[in-house]
Amino acid sequence: MVPHLTTALSGPINELEQRVLESMPAIERWFRLEWMEHTPTFYASVDLRNAGYKLAPVDTNLFPAGFNHLSEEVLPLAVQAAMAAIEKICPEAKNLLLVVQRRQPDSFYLSHLLTLVRIFTMAGLNVRLGTLDETVQEAQTLRLADGRSLQIEPVLRQRSRIGLKDFDPCTILLNDDLSAGIPDRLRALHEQYLLPPLHAGWPLRRKRHHQQAYEEVCKRFAKLLGMDPWLLVPATVAQQQVDLNQAQHVQALQAQVDVVLSRTRRKFKDYGIQENAFVAIKPDAASCSDCVLMVRDAKDLPEILARHGASTRLPQGPCDLIVQEGIPSYERIHDTVAEPVVCLMDRFVVGGYYRVHAGRQENEALNVPGARYVPLAFAQGAQLPRPGETPGVSAPNRFYMYGVVARLAMLAASYELEATDPEAEEL
Amino acid sequence: MVPHLTTALSGPINELEQRVLESMPAIERWFRLEWMEHTPTFYASVDLRNAGYKLAPVDTNLFPAGFNHLSEEVLPLAVQAAMAAIEKICPEAKNLLLVVQRRQPDSFYLSHLLTLVRIFTMAGLNVRLGTLDETVQEAQTLRLADGRSLQIEPVLRQRSRIGLKDFDPCTILLNDDLSAGIPDRLRALHEQYLLPPLHAGWPLRRKRHHQQAYEEVCKRFAKLLGMDPWLLVPATVAQQQVDLNQAQHVQALQAQVDVVLSRTRRKFKDYGIQENAFVAIKPDAASCSDCVLMVRDAKDLPEILARHGASTRLPQGPCDLIVQEGIPSYERIHDTVAEPVVCLMDRFVVGGYYRVHAGRQENEALNVPGARYVPLAFAQGAQLPRPGETPGVSAPNRFYMYGVVARLAMLAASYELEATDPEAEEL
Repeated sequence: MVPHLTTALSGPINELEQRVLESMPAIERWFRLEWMEHTPTFYASVDLRNAGYKLAPVDTNLFPAGFNHLSEEVLPLAVQAAMAAIEKICPEAKNLLLVVQRRQPDSFYLSHLLTLVRIFTMAGLNVRLGTLDETVQEAQTLRLADGRSLQIEPVLRQRSRIGLKDFDPCTILLNDDLSAGIPDRLRALHEQYLLPPLHAGWPLRRKRHHQQAYEEVCKRFAKLLGMDPWLLVPATVAQQQVDLNQAQHVQALQAQVDVVLSRTRRKFKDYGIQENAFVAIKPDAASCSDCVLMVRDAKDLPEILARHGASTRLPQGPCDLIVQEGIPSYERIHDTVAEPVVCLMDRFVVGGYYRVHAGRQENEALNVPGARYVPLAFAQGAQLPRPGETPGVSAPNRFYMYGVVARLAMLAASYELEATDPEAEEL
Repeated sequence: MVPHLTTALSGPINELEQRVLESMPAIERWFRLEWMEHTPTFYASVDLRNAGYKLAPVDTNLFPAGFNHLSEEVLPLAVQAAMAAIEKICPEAKNLLLVVQRRQPDSFYLSHLLTLVRIFTMAGLNVRLGTLDETVQEAQTLRLADGRSLQIEPVLRQRSRIGLKDFDPCTILLNDDLSAGIPDRLRALHEQYLLPPLHAGWPLRRKRHHQQAYEEVCKRFAKLLGMDPWLLVPATVAQQQVDLNQAQHVQALQAQVDVVLSRTRRKFKDYGIQENAFVAIKPDAASCSDCVLMVRDAKDLPEILARHGASTRLPQGPCDLIVQEGIPSYERIHDTVAEPVVCLMDRFVVGGYYRVHAGRQENEALNVPGARYVPLAFAQGAQLPRPGETPGVSAPNRFYMYGVVARLAMLAASYELEATDPEAEEL
């Protein structure tokens, strides 16, 4: 199933798809060489937006929470990728501690955790779940709606190691994005592998750094393919220490909105794209779609803030923001706006799913309450890309392109974490 | 689909299946550690025979020729495994030369080659096909029944490298088992990766070495699982320089047949197995199922030789033989005897298929003209093993066990090639 694109089949995305397919061996070799120099972030999920005229990641989640939406068919790929990852990081690994989100888990999240447990058990690890939530003092059994259950235990620190009661892991996989802070228990774990590293968590991570790295990666990738990197990169500027209650700050932000809108409109003109440009204003240091403001004209900003300011979860008081070219999603499943999410394990694309939202328009964020999920289900015999098919009509070809762009985002995350590593030595 | 087993569901194989499933993380970790020390043979296919009371590989093919029988669904696993293999062997690899069998290819073999080309292209290599056949002087285009075609070119030697016209590969993948001899062109290729190495070809390879290595691997694996290695290992003895035209040699061979039959009957008694023991006599240095003689009683051997000697392809004149415990195959697909074949790429199981033969009995070789092939097709959502299901009724669980035994055979091939490497330094 290729979701319906309202853009013409001859649009830039189809040219891009064709270019990507033709260059497959060169692209795979390029990634292979990149991964020799840069370490993947163990796992990730990447939200993409396909506007027909361009295709770009809008969120590179280093603590993915949607592996339950993967179809059963692709789980063997995830197991194989996990095997390859473990072999590289710590081949003698026996015990894996999976640290879960601190917020109260819903049934979907528990199902996601069960999927991760299955994957890592089959990859050859004893997996147990721990939480950093200090209110959890003893093991608790959580039940899913379908009757399955899992046990979550308090994470304990003993000297220089963390673990659970009677469970000493050599590898710790964080699925808590640390939004609630970095507990002291996690610091200075020099004897164990902590993946991803602490600075991948939101207390330290910044979207602007990811965006810089992504632009750098795309510039080189676009050179390889002889194409305009704009087809993959949303224009982005950062504005630090913005207090939305101060008129002066709002004016400065309006100026940035204008910068992004003008850049975008210039490109629209170059490409003959008949679209209304808009921007998304997002916090630089958090991953929440309901703190995103969409703005079509800088002069509307004060009014939008007045109208939506209270209902959004945009931080009150000075905060860092980014202003990013808005990418509409013209993919639809049964007339509902959809955006693909690609799941990665180590350097491999292991599958994906669509996020759909009946109550949202193509130029709005979909990752908000009410979203539903549809596995990127392929008809049998259709998983590998098929060079030679008409661009835009083959699901495997489309998904191959999505996988390439998601890997560009994952590679950018590697660059980003290298550049922001607080323990990196100065060169 | 689990082919029907005529043995009771409570038989030893189901106990083995249960033990294997329960020990999954330990097994995967054991393999992971083994593969740190031993290099997989790049690719292989392993023919298994499931007798209900035991399960054993009967042929570990290091030049597999049945990848066309894999279902489309598992090809992404093969691509991912190929990526991991290339990354380890030669990450900067760009061009791959695939050296095809010298014998006249049929449509099935061409389809197999096309599958390999697809897999390695998608793993990021430029793939071209070459032949060592000296009668091929220029590129020839071969057409398949379905209209697809491929081009095969003569392999050229230039100084210390081989390649094709205008194609200089860094890696050469042999799919020719070298039965027709090792051409000088392939010797002393110190600048290129030749996979598998020359001594994996039949001019140098011996089944008895593989069997020794397999017994060693199984002894250690059985210890890990606390089980009798006999459940996985067919009793085997070797007899060298046998001339079947000399009565004295035939008598010596009869004595070996007796040795294997007695060992097998003793085990049948221990386990209470109601079966008629038989042996398979095979050449030590070739992979052809139609040179296999099945013998139920040593005293029948002269008569069998007189009756079948001329019609089999057993070598005339002195040759090395092995006498191996015969493993009946009690799997059936639609009342036809079937045996599973597991395909491996690098250290990963990527899929499998069943070889079925309507004209053969459960105690005969199936890899002879007239065999048909059925992909090990799994219903959607059923590929990963499912701990907790009743042993013997779950296809993914059965296939997981097959994958484990096939990997034991692949690991044995690594041990074997290390032990027989003519260039290995003496320790």
